[in-house]
Amino acid sequence: MLTCAGATGPAEALLGAIEHGVVGVRGERIVFVGEAAALPAGAIGPGTQLVDARGGFVGPGLIDPHTHVVFAGERADEFELRCQGKSYLQIAQAGGGIVRTVRATQDATVAQLVELALPRLRRLFRQGVTCVEVKTGYGLSVDAELRMLDAIAELRRVQPVRLVSTLLPLHALPKSYVDRRAEFVALMRDELLPRAAARGDVTFCDAFVEQSAFTHEETRDVLGKAKALGFKLRLHVDQLTANQGAQLAAELGAVSADHLEQIDAAGISALKAAGVVPVLAPTSTLFAKVRPFAPGRALSDAGLGVALCTNCNPGSSNSENVSLAMGLACLENGLTPAEAYLGFTRWAAAAIADPERGRLQVGGPADLAVYAAPSYRELPYHLGMNDVRAVVCRGRLTDFEA
Amino acid sequence: MLTCAGATGPAEALLGAIEHGVVGVRGERIVFVGEAAALPAGAIGPGTQLVDARGGFVGPGLIDPHTHVVFAGERADEFELRCQGKSYLQIAQAGGGIVRTVRATQDATVAQLVELALPRLRRLFRQGVTCVEVKTGYGLSVDAELRMLDAIAELRRVQPVRLVSTLLPLHALPKSYVDRRAEFVALMRDELLPRAAARGDVTFCDAFVEQSAFTHEETRDVLGKAKALGFKLRLHVDQLTANQGAQLAAELGAVSADHLEQIDAAGISALKAAGVVPVLAPTSTLFAKVRPFAPGRALSDAGLGVALCTNCNPGSSNSENVSLAMGLACLENGLTPAEAYLGFTRWAAAAIADPERGRLQVGGPADLAVYAAPSYRELPYHLGMNDVRAVVCRGRLTDFEA
Repeated sequence: MLTCAGATGPAEALLGAIEHGVVGVRGERIVFVGEAAALPAGAIGPGTQLVDARGGFVGPGLIDPHTHVVFAGERADEFELRCQGKSYLQIAQAGGGIVRTVRATQDATVAQLVELALPRLRRLFRQGVTCVEVKTGYGLSVDAELRMLDAIAELRRVQPVRLVSTLLPLHALPKSYVDRRAEFVALMRDELLPRAAARGDVTFCDAFVEQSAFTHEETRDVLGKAKALGFKLRLHVDQLTANQGAQLAAELGAVSADHLEQIDAAGISALKAAGVVPVLAPTSTLFAKVRPFAPGRALSDAGLGVALCTNCNPGSSNSENVSLAMGLACLENGLTPAEAYLGFTRWAAAAIADPERGRLQVGGPADLAVYAAPSYRELPYHLGMNDVRAVVCRGRLTDFEA
Repeated sequence: MLTCAGATGPAEALLGAIEHGVVGVRGERIVFVGEAAALPAGAIGPGTQLVDARGGFVGPGLIDPHTHVVFAGERADEFELRCQGKSYLQIAQAGGGIVRTVRATQDATVAQLVELALPRLRRLFRQGVTCVEVKTGYGLSVDAELRMLDAIAELRRVQPVRLVSTLLPLHALPKSYVDRRAEFVALMRDELLPRAAARGDVTFCDAFVEQSAFTHEETRDVLGKAKALGFKLRLHVDQLTANQGAQLAAELGAVSADHLEQIDAAGISALKAAGVVPVLAPTSTLFAKVRPFAPGRALSDAGLGVALCTNCNPGSSNSENVSLAMGLACLENGLTPAEAYLGFTRWAAAAIADPERGRLQVGGPADLAVYAAPSYRELPYHLGMNDVRAVVCRGRLTDFEA
């Protein structure tokens, strides 16, 4: 069993391995974590449901801390173009990219958005993911953004995976605002933010800081207001071009700084000093043909806990595959398998500012993944495959082998 | 519906798309392929089982034309070392690599080998794969190689996926033969080959032509004899170091030349002139950190049908993921999605010298994959995921959504 709650030391120690470990669950909470021999007498009663990992291992439910799983439409043709050598920026400038998903998402009803997102969440759940961060950002208007939040709220009602929502008011500039950037920024800041804040179900506010998206100034303007309204912050930075985005995330006190392919040494120091969690999205680095891969090794060596995500979205990372993200993190970002596993557990929890998740501890949520594999090392090594045998989510068991 | 039986033209034409297509199956054979409107009157009788693709598409069962799915043991620790910068050759020279799997495989019983291979074949089947090439090569002794063939024969008996077996007498030199290379080569040639040939259930003979493995001369010696005994030939060439292996495959009249990361222009011409099918294994290029990726674009532009495989094995490609292989073929080998799909159908069939497979045609085997996705374009685009809804194998339906 891996609790991911080790107190200190290198990644392998943080995994908090317990041989012949037992997790006790009552209702939606963990009531025991320890060796089988330490179980209190009488702990197992007549109503106890026993689940045997049968040579596999048990760990916390995984957390995917950066996704865009609510969207309509698809962009398989852009994938083909990108494979033939067109860049992300070229495709965006030719009218493809985010704005295409925006049109399809604006045209969809809330019910349709829910219907489309459900299988994506099911695929994550099937891999042991019990908590997913989901962003808006394909609305680009006050109403469409709020409808995306409605879709997330409805998804919360109809399926078990816990959803953390992020408002992404600065994702792309709508064409109609090309000559009125300031107007769009003001609209998001003054109309969208207060209405989203008033809902009470949105945790984060986010921005895509990039040459082709939004500037530091625009981001400061909107996210400063968001912070005042009670949102926590996270940022898309240093992905396609180096833009000192990590430094901006540190300056704004963001919880996480995501992507980071182009981060520099000063950016790494800034994240460390400000306690910002780096979130890497190696599948999108591969999928969008961005190079280099983010310097996971350097980030970890600087003492940062590096979180990982699928960044599931139709443009730059059309994949819910967790094992692939872990494998790429090892192969291309230089993380070890232990670090990659912590990236979807302990550090992913830090990246959503919810440290009681991503680890097994008494009093914590009863969200568990049961693997057929004998070790976490199999997750990146069995590349792109899924060795999850069962999931416990909110204390309820789903056995995929039953 | 995609028949993959288009007569001529670019990849998109070879896909042989039929809108509102119907496949009729009787027993283990296809009895009708065409538009629904062209179904003969009375074709659908009271005993007919109807399967509706419900907006998805139907294509031939996939073929994985290069695997090593029969093996014992695992090598997750080597994966970790490789991610930390050790090369395939360094790991092999330090006593890791193929010889480690050889020890575990030699120590396993036939029943154990079967037990270990079954879930690998099930995972391939779940992705629509109905035919798999499987190699020996982890025996490195006459007896252990024959036991691997016994395991393949038993696997044929206990599960539905069709297996094409390949004897791989020249995979690695056992340590005990380091100073007696010629003796090992002679043993394989004079003892193993005739006994394997006498079984009558082995189609191919293969060799790993590489600095760290076997030379052109040794390969000519053994595979020349194999050809005389009636084996078809295939070769592992030009993977880690450029070794004019494609030229050797052409010279020997091999059916396929596999890997090809380091192939040169003369090698491409040689394959074309001799009608050798190139088989790319992009997952292992990624997994083993070999660079560059094989020049899929140049091979296809030279007029060659490029086959793809998972190369599933515990050392350099511990993955049964077909979508990942297709996606990498597009992202890294420069193939189009249509070419990648043909790589696991029509060209994979050519790579196992069985052209009646990998396409839908009257009289051909009733091996089909039914996808939830609307287009083959989703297979590489939905990276590393599996959109197969049902498989027909030997005429029998397995509905994964039932």
